[in-house]
Amino acid sequence: EEYNPKDYLSPLVTVDVAIFTLIEGRLHVLLVKRANHPERGRWALPGGFIDAGQDTTLSEAAARKLEEKTGVTAPYLEQVYTVGDNTRDPRGWSVTVLYMALMAHAPTAAFVDSVADTRWWPLADAMGQDLAFDHRQLLDAARQRLSNKTAYTVLPVHTLDAPFTLTQLQQAFEEVLGAALEKKSFRRRILSADILDEVGEAPPPGGRGRPAALFRAKAGLGEHAFVRVVGEGK
Amino acid sequence: EEYNPKDYLSPLVTVDVAIFTLIEGRLHVLLVKRANHPERGRWALPGGFIDAGQDTTLSEAAARKLEEKTGVTAPYLEQVYTVGDNTRDPRGWSVTVLYMALMAHAPTAAFVDSVADTRWWPLADAMGQDLAFDHRQLLDAARQRLSNKTAYTVLPVHTLDAPFTLTQLQQAFEEVLGAALEKKSFRRRILSADILDEVGEAPPPGGRGRPAALFRAKAGLGEHAFVRVVGEGK
Repeated sequence: EEYNPKDYLSPLVTVDVAIFTLIEGRLHVLLVKRANHPERGRWALPGGFIDAGQDTTLSEAAARKLEEKTGVTAPYLEQVYTVGDNTRDPRGWSVTVLYMALMAHAPTAAFVDSVADTRWWPLADAMGQDLAFDHRQLLDAARQRLSNKTAYTVLPVHTLDAPFTLTQLQQAFEEVLGAALEKKSFRRRILSADILDEVGEAPPPGGRGRPAALFRAKAGLGEHAFVRVVGEGK
Repeated sequence: EEYNPKDYLSPLVTVDVAIFTLIEGRLHVLLVKRANHPERGRWALPGGFIDAGQDTTLSEAAARKLEEKTGVTAPYLEQVYTVGDNTRDPRGWSVTVLYMALMAHAPTAAFVDSVADTRWWPLADAMGQDLAFDHRQLLDAARQRLSNKTAYTVLPVHTLDAPFTLTQLQQAFEEVLGAALEKKSFRRRILSADILDEVGEAPPPGGRGRPAALFRAKAGLGEHAFVRVVGEGK
């Protein structure tokens, strides 16, 4: 027998991306105001349908949506999970594959400002919005994933504008984890993990004392894991 | 404007399930020989299309496929990840949501024997098959997830026929982890985790010595996590 795709009622398939960055030390997420029905006018995670002509894989579709909204490619993109049911979208049985992306803010700033109805939101403000569809749950799941993995990986590195000081990097970890870290232990682990290149020095804060070393992530860093959990004992 | 689902070429959407059990102490996975094109005659993970009339969520669809092939519901079902691209299925752009399930063998044995072209395979033999589609990669991903989570959760409990002794439980962990565990440390952690009910005693092996206590998992156990990793130090 011949198989005819039109014989099956295929669910709608979308990808959605929770894109995180740090702006002035605070975690932000990119939201887009919906221009079309359904849920027109509500803020949502960037995303949309697979384009069978353009996208050859799910992660390519996610990367495409992300670049359309930020103007850049993300150094880190990870699949979080997939939600599908017959109630989350009024158009019918709907499946969305959720991704999480991390990027520095500066390279996106001008582009994001130029795109209508696209904005970096402080995370707490985004969570307080009446987001479209089930995007509040999706955002919550992505944020959880980011926090959990920050306990044993270097993910926050990807949210910082480079170059950065170790103090800025520690503050990024603390912001994502929502917890203070012990300075000496944090530095020892980061430096022994051999994930950073030292690229210069910044003047000391207030112009006094020693200059602070500046770093950037080594190329191809990805989600490099610590052997031991950050913030756990020494 | 009205939205018409037929305007979009929706990808095919399936769920696939890697169902693991222990038979005589060895990890097995359930495979089904495909009766239809494409890939007719090749072994595959159980799965198939969402039935928009029957299934209200993705995990319900996975649970339905699983029950159709084993005759029982699984005590543990977890989403692993989603794969989608334009090459994995000759019928077109195809997305599959992969699940992993764990179950005891005894309750499934008669049913599985009665279903044509459905069989429990020792894992190594299954991995050696020329499986349909990309199911070898899917099986590999599910097996990795099971191993990784066994380092910090009690998942192997769900693969054992109950009641079981602590020795049998330790052997289940060792089989899934592919590593030997230290007996005293394993027992202390399992018993202090308060996840088992003692339900009787088994005669000692060979009829000599003390009888062995028999246990079953507490109801609703799920993926209970250890605070510390099994097999790491004391």
